[in-house]
Amino acid sequence: MTTQRAEFDADTTVTPAGAGRYAAQLAPGWKVGGGLNGGYQLAVIGTAISAHLPEKPDPVAISAYFLSAAEAGPATVDVEVKRAGGRMSTVAAEMTQGDATRVSVLATYSDLDRFDGDVRTTAVEPELPPREECVGRADVPSYVLEMAPLMSRFDMLFPREQSGWTVGEHTGEGRFQAWFRLADDREPDPLALLLVLDALPPVTFDLGLVGWAPTLELSAHVRAKPAPGWLKVQHHTRNLAGGMFEEDCEVWDSTGRLVAQSRQLALAPRAS
Amino acid sequence: MTTQRAEFDADTTVTPAGAGRYAAQLAPGWKVGGGLNGGYQLAVIGTAISAHLPEKPDPVAISAYFLSAAEAGPATVDVEVKRAGGRMSTVAAEMTQGDATRVSVLATYSDLDRFDGDVRTTAVEPELPPREECVGRADVPSYVLEMAPLMSRFDMLFPREQSGWTVGEHTGEGRFQAWFRLADDREPDPLALLLVLDALPPVTFDLGLVGWAPTLELSAHVRAKPAPGWLKVQHHTRNLAGGMFEEDCEVWDSTGRLVAQSRQLALAPRAS
Repeated sequence: MTTQRAEFDADTTVTPAGAGRYAAQLAPGWKVGGGLNGGYQLAVIGTAISAHLPEKPDPVAISAYFLSAAEAGPATVDVEVKRAGGRMSTVAAEMTQGDATRVSVLATYSDLDRFDGDVRTTAVEPELPPREECVGRADVPSYVLEMAPLMSRFDMLFPREQSGWTVGEHTGEGRFQAWFRLADDREPDPLALLLVLDALPPVTFDLGLVGWAPTLELSAHVRAKPAPGWLKVQHHTRNLAGGMFEEDCEVWDSTGRLVAQSRQLALAPRAS
Repeated sequence: MTTQRAEFDADTTVTPAGAGRYAAQLAPGWKVGGGLNGGYQLAVIGTAISAHLPEKPDPVAISAYFLSAAEAGPATVDVEVKRAGGRMSTVAAEMTQGDATRVSVLATYSDLDRFDGDVRTTAVEPELPPREECVGRADVPSYVLEMAPLMSRFDMLFPREQSGWTVGEHTGEGRFQAWFRLADDREPDPLALLLVLDALPPVTFDLGLVGWAPTLELSAHVRAKPAPGWLKVQHHTRNLAGGMFEEDCEVWDSTGRLVAQSRQLALAPRAS
């Protein structure tokens, strides 16, 4: 009997390729529209940084500036330590394909087990209907799945009233909430959270602006190691202006703890 | 008659000092506790980047990782272009003092006049009492002003019910709102907004955690050029956990437009 590696682990594998350099193979399954999902790219880069800092393997804060559209195929991640501290280290990293820089990153890593457990959050866990009442991939039109192979890499279950985007409807609130679980029942961990923070459709879909919303910048904070089980993910935007919008994301684990937060700035699709 | 330069402009002046290098003189007036305010450092770095990109002088997104405590005195900012685009350019920058790197930055700049004016924000401008009913510097105990010379660089007017922190009280909500205006009636612009986003006391003061809250990472989005006049600033936190908290800030201009947003991750002061 062989143990099959989960798809997420296979597709974010990095191998050492020289001083501070890691080789990756970007997988076509994470495409959405013309490009590869930004959260997937972040997870690959985050894995390379983790490999470079074995005593501080967990992202605490990571900021990514997306410079050009990544493609499936070989990629290189270069990691440079900017400050090696006792509890946290900060690095710069870049992902390149050929001569093109795809993403520039700054990140602070640590060992999240070292943080004390005191929680005083005022954030309230999203209330979602039971998963069996939600709308999942089986309800999504096949042309959407073909346009976004990404959506077959995980289960993402929307409350019925927030699932209008799959058929061209929207609530106008600029908010999405969903249950989330990686394929192969791969349990969440800090590196997987980097993907989860950018996996849902852009909240602009819920404003009736359907189309590609390229991320300029995404900064993520991983606040705790997630417990096993289904995650809850919430996206929303407050400020669509000047052709750009901010998108905030929160991820909650199965114990109801807020384990990751992110904010990104993205270009808004043109009004249709 | 001579025209006096505003303090903010004098204290953020940079002069070219070689390829991509700019010299600055960090001014002691921006101290708070033992260190220099992070927003001030960001404004100095932001000014150097602006000098390096004369056709795209405005920060759109900027992410700063604070590596060691800056001191008053000479500093060097090095700027490296990562991608020069038609509408936006992305750079890496570092501020150093002697051999110590103080701050590592990634930023995307543009000319904010080029962005269209369509605004669909759902964010609601904070309601603040008239300024004459608010609590300002004159009401702050002198030992606080001596500990934080920063507070004499601008006017910051708090609603009376949110001013308890000046006398050791707190609401427990983790939220601050204030009117804001730079000294010398210096009007706001995109570079000044970088300071404004980190100028208020940490929201942890409003949770009863009074003390230094060093910023690990701060990412800011400047969404429009601010109109002249008083700004409204709002800080809040949702998630204090594991010895860290996120702090979100919004800045609104005198026309009621949301002109800047930021999120930072900071170390929480110890419970007193």
